[in-house]
Amino acid sequence: MLDFTFHVPTRIVFGAGRLEELGRLPLPGVKPLVVVGAGGSMRRHGHLDRVLALLRQNGCEPMLFERVRPNPSLVHVDEGACVARANGCDFIVGLGGGSPIDAAKAIALAAANGGSYWDYIQSGTGGRRTPQHPALPVVAIPTTAGTGTEADPWTVVTRDETQEKIGWGNDSTYPVLSIVDPALTITVPPRITAMTGMDAFFHAVEAYLSLSRQPSSDLLALEAVSLLAQFLPQAVRQGDSVEVRSMVSWASTAAGLCESLSSCIAHHSMEHALSAYHPDLPHGAGLVMLSLPFFEVMARVQPKRCADLAATMGMPLHGLPPAQQGMAFVEGLRLLIRAVGLDDLRLADHGITAAEIPALAKNARETMGALFPLTPVDLRPEDVEAIFAKALAGPTA
Amino acid sequence: MLDFTFHVPTRIVFGAGRLEELGRLPLPGVKPLVVVGAGGSMRRHGHLDRVLALLRQNGCEPMLFERVRPNPSLVHVDEGACVARANGCDFIVGLGGGSPIDAAKAIALAAANGGSYWDYIQSGTGGRRTPQHPALPVVAIPTTAGTGTEADPWTVVTRDETQEKIGWGNDSTYPVLSIVDPALTITVPPRITAMTGMDAFFHAVEAYLSLSRQPSSDLLALEAVSLLAQFLPQAVRQGDSVEVRSMVSWASTAAGLCESLSSCIAHHSMEHALSAYHPDLPHGAGLVMLSLPFFEVMARVQPKRCADLAATMGMPLHGLPPAQQGMAFVEGLRLLIRAVGLDDLRLADHGITAAEIPALAKNARETMGALFPLTPVDLRPEDVEAIFAKALAGPTA
Ligand SMILES: [Fe+2]
Ligand SMILES: [Fe+2]
Repeated sequence: MLDFTFHVPTRIVFGAGRLEELGRLPLPGVKPLVVVGAGGSMRRHGHLDRVLALLRQNGCEPMLFERVRPNPSLVHVDEGACVARANGCDFIVGLGGGSPIDAAKAIALAAANGGSYWDYIQSGTGGRRTPQHPALPVVAIPTTAGTGTEADPWTVVTRDETQEKIGWGNDSTYPVLSIVDPALTITVPPRITAMTGMDAFFHAVEAYLSLSRQPSSDLLALEAVSLLAQFLPQAVRQGDSVEVRSMVSWASTAAGLCESLSSCIAHHSMEHALSAYHPDLPHGAGLVMLSLPFFEVMARVQPKRCADLAATMGMPLHGLPPAQQGMAFVEGLRLLIRAVGLDDLRLADHGITAAEIPALAKNARETMGALFPLTPVDLRPEDVEAIFAKALAGPTA
Repeated sequence: MLDFTFHVPTRIVFGAGRLEELGRLPLPGVKPLVVVGAGGSMRRHGHLDRVLALLRQNGCEPMLFERVRPNPSLVHVDEGACVARANGCDFIVGLGGGSPIDAAKAIALAAANGGSYWDYIQSGTGGRRTPQHPALPVVAIPTTAGTGTEADPWTVVTRDETQEKIGWGNDSTYPVLSIVDPALTITVPPRITAMTGMDAFFHAVEAYLSLSRQPSSDLLALEAVSLLAQFLPQAVRQGDSVEVRSMVSWASTAAGLCESLSSCIAHHSMEHALSAYHPDLPHGAGLVMLSLPFFEVMARVQPKRCADLAATMGMPLHGLPPAQQGMAFVEGLRLLIRAVGLDDLRLADHGITAAEIPALAKNARETMGALFPLTPVDLRPEDVEAIFAKALAGPTA
């Protein structure tokens, strides 16, 4: 029987060229802290200067916080919150990939509530406190297509000393405004396009398999899977097409909506463990390397849902016995990974060894354990270890 | 190229039995004005007592406003706003069909801003003032499935003395919370079920054809069309099935989301004209009686989109030349109207005469003219009159 809650309060302004509207849209304050990555790419591509100019044009006095690294660290979140409080910032702008936008949300929460952001984390070594105030309003301006953070309340932050990478969010960490301008993604290099696009693909696939799914997440998930199967390989090969980039950006935002309306499953918990121990491993790469053994298990327990995904990707199902139709999705996934040029990824090349598998499996359960009960099969610790081991062995092709 | 704004801030709590959560969900105030229809059905079915008890259980001191008639009248909206202001109400609950919920939104806006609600209407004889304050928060509890008002910001209010029925809304008239409990619709009689369900069907169809459509409204529109084609006839025949009612309620809410993400088109403008002159005509009945001639025109100008709708309804398209595939939707619509038992509706039986057609066509343009530029063909006054005339002549079959 249908039973769900639909709630995505974010205003999403989507379209090539629409970043210009930052100069005239109603904004939630006058003194934003603009959060960008430490790598300098927002400066190099001119996105940062343009955003600062548009904010000034809109009557704002922006401050800058430029220290966020990929897989944002608690240290920088707490530092950003301190800067925001000390300067009386009244909203936070996240500009860039998933990391600065996630960091912007976390900074917005900590700035409004005081203390360390980790005080409010509800799992692992988190302080499990309840925030007394909503986060400062967040404006998200993604320049990659993949994380979906522009359409969900989630922030993923890593506490380095305990090797914990934990997702968190509440109603107040939904961006109040997200400007998704696919033209900003034109300069993203092919390999990053592929990795971030596969992240979006897995958000959609996991939301479709999750026990917390609902009708509207199913619709958006199939839309994202269909568009990414068709357009992500094109975006990797021909990154200068705004049309193709628009399709991939919308797929990514649709998959982000799925993360709000449904949820990811244990595949994401396992990847968070991987990149908690190996912070240089891109999230999308980790997901890709775990995906074939993980979704082989899903295809066995959810053949019908996986068959829907396979059909949506254009895989032929005709003549296959129902129990095997789910495996057609795994085959489609294998082809997609090859089509986007990520079939060369190997866990061993990123320094992952068999010896750490028990610790990874334990970390996945402890830090992102909440996704396990939403996964359509009860994965015991030995099942999780077996998936890590199979992923480490690599494709048997 | 993709270009749209996605924004639906309402929290929609959906599921049979979930009205109970009104007793414990966070509410936006402590002194709600509960707005219900004048007919007494909310008392008879026990819904009103239950809602008042749940509000009290949740720490509220509810006031009651029980004067809303079908096609809510400006007089009662202004009276309700006066009651809300005089009693210091801090939020408004709309309980019932579309009329009390629309009235609740309008009361919420007028109560927060003062003056008459009509001061803020932007067309016809409206005062075209800009509200200085957001509306009081609105909680919507629909007991019918059809208007979609639980998932959109629109209020439709009639000014009797000028025979204007005008839709209006802004970001603040989205309900902050909508509890859609399909079990509340079990007692809706077959004919009302059919008429309100067909209203939802047209919201979805019109959103799918509207020039303001976007990918997510397309997905939700096809979902609603598919579910209503399958389950609305069942809900009319077998109204006591909570499963069937759940499907129809979700279709109605999905179509309501479409009204937020896309829009209705001139079919709704024309119906508003009809029921402005004939306030006893149910909105869904008016839509049904105008629909075949209206969508014949759409099928000619938008054969591909209408073919999508036909295919979604399960109509066979195979072998039809592309230009005729759109007409398969008109045929599917005719079959659906028959399947829900509304093929006996005649405009003449409701007192509509050929003499008033020019006035109706003029009214449609003046009061709900904003939907004409969103209609996928430029309907001249004579086209609108021709559709009214054909609808008045009735089915030729
Ligand atoms: Fe992800
Ligand atoms: Fe309607």
